[in-house]
Amino acid sequence: MAHINLENELPGIRGLMAYSPKTEAPLNALAEVLLRDDDNTLTRGDRELIGAYVSYLNDCFFCQNVHGALAGHYLGCNIHEIDAIKSDFTSAAITPKMKALLAIAASVQKGGKAVTEEQVAAARAENATDKEIHDTVLIAAAFCMFNRYVDGLATWAPQDRQFYVNRAPQRALDGYQSSIYK
Amino acid sequence: MAHINLENELPGIRGLMAYSPKTEAPLNALAEVLLRDDDNTLTRGDRELIGAYVSYLNDCFFCQNVHGALAGHYLGCNIHEIDAIKSDFTSAAITPKMKALLAIAASVQKGGKAVTEEQVAAARAENATDKEIHDTVLIAAAFCMFNRYVDGLATWAPQDRQFYVNRAPQRALDGYQSSIYK
Repeated sequence: MAHINLENELPGIRGLMAYSPKTEAPLNALAEVLLRDDDNTLTRGDRELIGAYVSYLNDCFFCQNVHGALAGHYLGCNIHEIDAIKSDFTSAAITPKMKALLAIAASVQKGGKAVTEEQVAAARAENATDKEIHDTVLIAAAFCMFNRYVDGLATWAPQDRQFYVNRAPQRALDGYQSSIYK
Repeated sequence: MAHINLENELPGIRGLMAYSPKTEAPLNALAEVLLRDDDNTLTRGDRELIGAYVSYLNDCFFCQNVHGALAGHYLGCNIHEIDAIKSDFTSAAITPKMKALLAIAASVQKGGKAVTEEQVAAARAENATDKEIHDTVLIAAAFCMFNRYVDGLATWAPQDRQFYVNRAPQRALDGYQSSIYK
């Protein structure tokens, strides 16, 4: 049971967003531009994967399943392949650039100062742009917020992981700004 | 020097926001509603104090000074009094309700699951409302994002702490949505 009375039965961040529409608007607007904006050389799948990975590091069941399912939807991977990336991206079948960006995301999860010049140089060596590095840091930082919001108020989450896989295609069509009530 | 070329000389999050206007908009909109919205029983000073305290725990020099100075401005405290609250709020001259909320914020800084039912019950015993508990968790979570964004990209910050104190009254007038270019 959540720490506060949300006055709705929606799971995870959706219950929080329905409870607090004034903060829902900028939170969903942030997710929309970070994860879905078309003016970006990181694919939607790449960006959802960064979010899912940070949510995994923060042990947030709801977020890692929502965004892991979306990453799988966009990247054409099943849930087990996404799990394998989360548990050891260094040996996964992803690009060297994505490995360098996930290493930066892992440092951000620990704390901003954990990101090293060497990690940034390694990403540049794989042709990561300034904007890609910027977006990786901000996506990772944003999920450190979303994860704490979801678990800090003890929201409930469906335990059947297929629930999230089934929802991902419609979520990918709807985007974030219209998704909380569906 | 920042990890990426921000193409401006602005410090801290202001440089990042000028670099990335598309993400600036929802980030400042979130800060505006969380920290300044009038429909809130936590004062602006209380809310800035939560942000300053979490920024202190995350060791983010820029954010703890910006928001510490704003907390001091609203609460009528000087920088040393704000520092004393940050380093040991349990013995500071603040209300029992604020102490209970700062304890929740400190847990959120560690991770969402660190917030305990006992901490929430202690806040309720001091008459904290559901919305106050919700806002405390989300403010603390949001500063875990802002702090990581600022330090994860290695932005520069003025080292003279009086700089932040001097700016606070104008920032308090301007709010967040118009503040980055000033």
